Amino acid sequence: MQGEMSMSGVVGVVAEYNPFHNGHLYQLQQIRHSFPDDVIIVAMSGNFLQRGEPACLDKWTRARQSLINGADLVIELPVLACVQPADRFAEGAISLLVALGVNKLVFGAEHSTYDFKDFARKVAQVHGEFHKYNESYAQSFQKAVTQAIGHPVDQPNDLLGLAYAKANYRLGEPVALYPIQRIETSYHDQSLHQGKNIASASAIRKNFLEVPASQQQLAPYLPQSSLDDLLAGPFLSWTDFWPLLRYQILSSGLSELRQVYGMTEGIEYRIQDLTQRSPINLKFDEWVKEVKTKRFTYTHLSRLAVAILLNISKEEVNAYNQHPYIRLLGFDLHGQKQLSRIKKNCSLPIYSRISQEDKKGQLAVDYRAGKIYQLFNGREQDLKRAPIVL
Amino acid sequence: MQGEMSMSGVVGVVAEYNPFHNGHLYQLQQIRHSFPDDVIIVAMSGNFLQRGEPACLDKWTRARQSLINGADLVIELPVLACVQPADRFAEGAISLLVALGVNKLVFGAEHSTYDFKDFARKVAQVHGEFHKYNESYAQSFQKAVTQAIGHPVDQPNDLLGLAYAKANYRLGEPVALYPIQRIETSYHDQSLHQGKNIASASAIRKNFLEVPASQQQLAPYLPQSSLDDLLAGPFLSWTDFWPLLRYQILSSGLSELRQVYGMTEGIEYRIQDLTQRSPINLKFDEWVKEVKTKRFTYTHLSRLAVAILLNISKEEVNAYNQHPYIRLLGFDLHGQKQLSRIKKNCSLPIYSRISQEDKKGQLAVDYRAGKIYQLFNGREQDLKRAPIVL
Repeated sequence: MQGEMSMSGVVGVVAEYNPFHNGHLYQLQQIRHSFPDDVIIVAMSGNFLQRGEPACLDKWTRARQSLINGADLVIELPVLACVQPADRFAEGAISLLVALGVNKLVFGAEHSTYDFKDFARKVAQVHGEFHKYNESYAQSFQKAVTQAIGHPVDQPNDLLGLAYAKANYRLGEPVALYPIQRIETSYHDQSLHQGKNIASASAIRKNFLEVPASQQQLAPYLPQSSLDDLLAGPFLSWTDFWPLLRYQILSSGLSELRQVYGMTEGIEYRIQDLTQRSPINLKFDEWVKEVKTKRFTYTHLSRLAVAILLNISKEEVNAYNQHPYIRLLGFDLHGQKQLSRIKKNCSLPIYSRISQEDKKGQLAVDYRAGKIYQLFNGREQDLKRAPIVL
Repeated sequence: MQGEMSMSGVVGVVAEYNPFHNGHLYQLQQIRHSFPDDVIIVAMSGNFLQRGEPACLDKWTRARQSLINGADLVIELPVLACVQPADRFAEGAISLLVALGVNKLVFGAEHSTYDFKDFARKVAQVHGEFHKYNESYAQSFQKAVTQAIGHPVDQPNDLLGLAYAKANYRLGEPVALYPIQRIETSYHDQSLHQGKNIASASAIRKNFLEVPASQQQLAPYLPQSSLDDLLAGPFLSWTDFWPLLRYQILSSGLSELRQVYGMTEGIEYRIQDLTQRSPINLKFDEWVKEVKTKRFTYTHLSRLAVAILLNISKEEVNAYNQHPYIRLLGFDLHGQKQLSRIKKNCSLPIYSRISQEDKKGQLAVDYRAGKIYQLFNGREQDLKRAPIVL
């Protein structure tokens, strides 16, 4: 880990933990090793993820793993932050962490030697309205980055790191950046490598779902308690929610689809028409491939699918961006102390329990997402759920 | 069958055929016997019924039974007519039949000796805005009917007959009314009676669903081809659509629920709140019981459930009432001749096939309902479906 190692304070991490595995454990251990006196705060996506899919395990299960394995405080990234594209997602996450006192941001990168802070300053102007994002924009973005920096930044985690760095720059650089070297596996690598003890989360999910007989063979790649969680389930995926998404598209009028966040450039016509024509046994992945155009990436369409599924409107996202908030999922003693220190001066509302009033107010969309997740998960996600205290 | 038996022309029947059984066969035979030279036109509910439930078999299957067993022409009552309360449903159905040249309306009644035409004149003013319908309204309606007529009219088919008669009166009495005596079973009777060959549709459905082992024992109560249809399936019920309905309620905002046709008196708050609280294994019938209040009957709530499921707005129902239309499901030679006779002068548009344009236009809600029904039925319900020609 590079950077100003002596600076003490509060470390922030942005995570999905889908599921929590040895790579995440390694990251938390590295942070503890480098900053033994710091509080570690994790901003974790809830039950629906920025990449456009339901979390395999619910937010409480994943938050608990994070706490067991080294985090001091876990907050939920509200679903309205998670449905936004990378640049806005990054800004939303860092804003919440900063409001909780974070002054260091640690993130994994394919190239931890990159000077992300410097890169961010160089490419600060090279980001457009994300809703105009398309393949050719991605290409021209890469071109501009290459020109500004002198080489491409095109690996998934490097790109995410750049998004954090750019967000940090826009926010006035409230945090120091600590890229941490990703080891032993690439982000998109879907295979398990014998003899290693780190695999990508997507490799773990894929093997868990597709080869149920060998689920125990995942043991080398996850803390035992996290594997136990996976085996206990329920393990959810788009396979569960796809029939609801399809029904939502079929039952909505075009004017209703047009209200959905991320629905741009008339894609609602294509989405509804292709869904109406689709054979009854079509799967979610096949549906995304059907709908795919040159102007919409798979990830953009998957995220749009989450917005349709959860019936998230443009107005709701705008309202969140105007009035963000913090939702506690769990903490240990260090986290609790940090909360006490920050609470008086925190610029954002902090929710620890959700009341009947909250579910109709600021947290209505999180509550809605929780109710929909609950349809397959079976457990109430919000009302009467108290933060985990370790 | 009473009435002016000598008058020749076109007989109309309003039906659900859910499923087509010997009682329906008997009715068609009676009509043929009484009016051997008349054309028989059936206005049949489509895939969702006025009582607030999905049809057990799709509209094509049920229309075919009707044609095989004596009808000359079967049209679909558009779903926007079917989601309306009895008085408006009756008026919608009779309007379509009249537009096709119907001058006699035959309907089953518990008391076929009632003079429905006379009753209708006497109680013409005794119907309120149906969206204010509630138990106490039903009671005061009965009181007013008793006062006006001299005795109560409170059996289900008698009440439906009265609704037809009132609608006929409002339309200027374009049809002569022919009540036909219901035989051997009462409308709500859910048991099969050994040694008889007529059972109620609800008894047939109940036994079919609940005692799969004895499905062949339904043979005495249905034409063989109709029993074959039942056995071939898919046989649908609220059990299939309930998870979608629940999801629709959970994913909708209150302002969206408020747009739904039939959502009155703030019932959307109660519906959403109770659905959010409901245990994951709650069934549709239990849900209706939960939501039930003194001001909403089971039927009203079930019909509202269909409107929510199909996302039918008040505006869509109003638009239909302003511009009704006729949709052909099938005909024989007599029906075809009647169509030729009427087509030049028919006051309403007649659809025989649904084009890509129609599905976006006047028939959009039928198409939507068909797509949702298809999720469990598996068969395209509209596009490229030609009327059955017998």
